[in-house]
Amino acid sequence: MIEVEVKASIRDIHSVLGKIHALGAEYIGEEYHEDVYFKSPNGDLARRDEALRIRKTQNGTYITYKGPKIDPETKTREEIEIRIDDPEKAIDIFKRLGFDVLAVVRKRRRIYRYDEFTICIDEVEGLGHFIEVEKLVNGEGIEGGKRKIFALLAMLGISRNETIRKSYLEMLYSRMGLISVKRND
Amino acid sequence: MIEVEVKASIRDIHSVLGKIHALGAEYIGEEYHEDVYFKSPNGDLARRDEALRIRKTQNGTYITYKGPKIDPETKTREEIEIRIDDPEKAIDIFKRLGFDVLAVVRKRRRIYRYDEFTICIDEVEGLGHFIEVEKLVNGEGIEGGKRKIFALLAMLGISRNETIRKSYLEMLYSRMGLISVKRND
Repeated sequence: MIEVEVKASIRDIHSVLGKIHALGAEYIGEEYHEDVYFKSPNGDLARRDEALRIRKTQNGTYITYKGPKIDPETKTREEIEIRIDDPEKAIDIFKRLGFDVLAVVRKRRRIYRYDEFTICIDEVEGLGHFIEVEKLVNGEGIEGGKRKIFALLAMLGISRNETIRKSYLEMLYSRMGLISVKRND
Repeated sequence: MIEVEVKASIRDIHSVLGKIHALGAEYIGEEYHEDVYFKSPNGDLARRDEALRIRKTQNGTYITYKGPKIDPETKTREEIEIRIDDPEKAIDIFKRLGFDVLAVVRKRRRIYRYDEFTICIDEVEGLGHFIEVEKLVNGEGIEGGKRKIFALLAMLGISRNETIRKSYLEMLYSRMGLISVKRND
């Protein structure tokens, strides 16, 4: 399953939320995420721009593999996700397999649905507010999907050059003044 | 969670089933297992006598990590298990993480409960009939648990020197005339 995904940092959260409401987007709900990221025994995951994550939410727990980004301008990538019953045991299993915990990212996510888009407003611990817009790739292809997402972001007052490809994990590492995740894992 | 586990091959399945019924063991039910075993990218799993398995049954799917055997006479080892929703996606995730499928073991398992023991009668594709008796380790320790299991097996007409520590995976490999799993993974 390929989703085109674009992220941008938000300077004025009230302005963006106001524009989302004005659009008539449907409010889906709120989630709290605790995302545990792993590094692989040999550093392959980071070297290949892949990620392994266990996400705990109030609605369930998931293991997610994220493939390398496949588009130079967006966060578009393949994701494979399964639902599991016990996050702590899952973390234990990966540790025994040689995957150490790299970092934990905590956020509050407000989710909206508008037309064919999912709009997420994230408040990330230690990083601030962000918007992520995603849509499934269909007949229009990745380029067509990107154009539609950039047009939606423009309506929300966010320009194309304000978007970012870095993951929250990479941003946290930069903020902490550590060497980049890519070189570190 | 540590379980003492002893396995033996069965020559006369009708005799053993008759003795289990005569004991008054409670019949729990029947399961069909398709067990997918993985090898690790660097061969560490087999070298350390560990295993990673995805088990599909008619009642659910599980990921299980098995630690090294910790007793010289039995199959006793630590197990960490989580329940998941989608076996094929889970196999995909492990493949992306560099774990290749080593082998698939299929069996029919009849499960009985007797006193503090779980008794499994397995019919393994390509290998025949086996009995596995297990119990949780409690105050009596591993040695005490072993004594109790060997005593139960004796009541079923199975002597201590008929027990085997090899996994079904290792037996299948031996039968196929391949080099041992340990050296191959």
